[in-house]
Amino acid sequence: MKAIVIREPGGVDVLELRDVPDPIPTRGEVCVRIRATAVNRADLLQRMGAYPAPPGAPTDIPGLELAGEIESLGDGVTELAVGDRVFGLAGGGTYAQKVVVPSRTLARMPSGISFTDAAAIPEAFLTAYDALVVQGRLQAGERVLVSAVGSGVGTAAVQIIRALGARAFGTARSGDKIERAKALGLIDGVVPDGARFATAVTKLVGGGVNVVIELVGGAYVAEDLACIAARGRIVVVGLMAGTHADVDLGIVLGKRATIVGTMMRARPLEEKILAARMLEENLAPLIADEKLVPVIDRVLSLEKAREAHTLMASSETFGKIVLEVP
Amino acid sequence: MKAIVIREPGGVDVLELRDVPDPIPTRGEVCVRIRATAVNRADLLQRMGAYPAPPGAPTDIPGLELAGEIESLGDGVTELAVGDRVFGLAGGGTYAQKVVVPSRTLARMPSGISFTDAAAIPEAFLTAYDALVVQGRLQAGERVLVSAVGSGVGTAAVQIIRALGARAFGTARSGDKIERAKALGLIDGVVPDGARFATAVTKLVGGGVNVVIELVGGAYVAEDLACIAARGRIVVVGLMAGTHADVDLGIVLGKRATIVGTMMRARPLEEKILAARMLEENLAPLIADEKLVPVIDRVLSLEKAREAHTLMASSETFGKIVLEVP
Repeated sequence: MKAIVIREPGGVDVLELRDVPDPIPTRGEVCVRIRATAVNRADLLQRMGAYPAPPGAPTDIPGLELAGEIESLGDGVTELAVGDRVFGLAGGGTYAQKVVVPSRTLARMPSGISFTDAAAIPEAFLTAYDALVVQGRLQAGERVLVSAVGSGVGTAAVQIIRALGARAFGTARSGDKIERAKALGLIDGVVPDGARFATAVTKLVGGGVNVVIELVGGAYVAEDLACIAARGRIVVVGLMAGTHADVDLGIVLGKRATIVGTMMRARPLEEKILAARMLEENLAPLIADEKLVPVIDRVLSLEKAREAHTLMASSETFGKIVLEVP
Repeated sequence: MKAIVIREPGGVDVLELRDVPDPIPTRGEVCVRIRATAVNRADLLQRMGAYPAPPGAPTDIPGLELAGEIESLGDGVTELAVGDRVFGLAGGGTYAQKVVVPSRTLARMPSGISFTDAAAIPEAFLTAYDALVVQGRLQAGERVLVSAVGSGVGTAAVQIIRALGARAFGTARSGDKIERAKALGLIDGVVPDGARFATAVTKLVGGGVNVVIELVGGAYVAEDLACIAARGRIVVVGLMAGTHADVDLGIVLGKRATIVGTMMRARPLEEKILAARMLEENLAPLIADEKLVPVIDRVLSLEKAREAHTLMASSETFGKIVLEVP
């Protein structure tokens, strides 16, 4: 099969389209013929050697999500059949024509959507749904702050918040991204002054925010603490602005606040299976009803992986970059 | 009635025994004839002017917990009767012969225990139980780190951890406090080197700790993050060592950790009622069975409040200081 391989840690030039051996499914696994995948920041880190693939995943083929058709089944797989249209997360190796994953970690695609749309969904919508609902215990009517509303997870979060009857506010690097996010359900937003936004958000959102989905990290966390309501939950999903946070424990106690970190990739099998069930049972119906719509900046062919990584690093995109697999 | 009154913010000398008017219960309230109360760090802060009483509580009479008998009922109180032996938390005003509180915020005392034992229970055991079970989601078999195992909350936490089938480890300022805590169920402990204990705790507890009940705060939080297991929960209850924490968000994400702040006093009525139900339904049976035993450093008479505050500030005590009310 064809795959994009990381020749050695480095810049975009280390990505090469190569012929590699087909993966073979063993007991409980399936081989998926991938029709589309999408780009995540973790892929860029992995390319640079800063984020090794978890055990069991291909070490040199990036890619965390896929949409495609079941090509072959390992022993003991009964719930999926050859030809089924599936989508979901993988530990790695989806910049390729085929990948092998445990069958229970896949979800059936909603009928009527394309592979390129489906490939833009798993990482962004599962990360956002898990962060908001499972980690953040979001309830109807609550106010949520989404940092980086123009990102893949940000555009997914805004839509999920609206679909669940809660209210989305956000930050972004440009007023243009905030305007585009309003079309997805954002009530209003703020362009941070450096890393400062708490005062502006407090003015915008009466009573403070109940949940923050924090995609930037670093100095943003202290601002989050300043603008949450009592019993607010800050769910830290991304660290684009760095890993160090100065935390005022007086505020944490006084507001009885929660700071919780989350990531999808490092999860054990049982949690990846639960994520796939969430994709099929909680998200797919809302996607079928078009209450949730994948936001795609553009679709490129797999061999344009270098261009896709350059685009992602620019932070100039709005939504996902999808790679169509020939 | 007699009460200890804070004359003005200051040292122990501002505490004075005075005659003050009896409080009168209104609808839904009861007047309790207090037989014993106990000392908390919050009382010292309130005396110094750093922790004002919440709205509705007496502003100048300290004291957050009580054991006594119902003396009179306001209108509409049906679940308690004059003479019932009760214990529980109050927003303030328990360094006195009488206090008025909403009837649902009291719990019935387990039969067979004394007022002085009962007065040592509410704040320490409810804080510990709520922090461990409600905030920390403690499960049987898990490993817990208790900072300050010799404190009122610490000695309560160690016993609750054992009673729920989990494993208690701890830190304290002296080896002597750790030895005494072992009699309550502590498996083993560490005397921190300054604020450093993560390496020693990791050596002691294979696999890291699942829950930390953090009573010291400040620099302890970074050490907690270093010695928790994946999906560990750090419940911040006290800030004796200060309010600033340097938090490595890389660890928070990588371990999918939770940091949550909690306090009992600032809670709204409905949560105070839930706390009283927890005291009656979850803790009182374990107290009646002597699986949980109040740990009392000493019992003083109410007029010795100054001496009690000096003792508490010394951090030389082990367990609670109880004040008997004549």
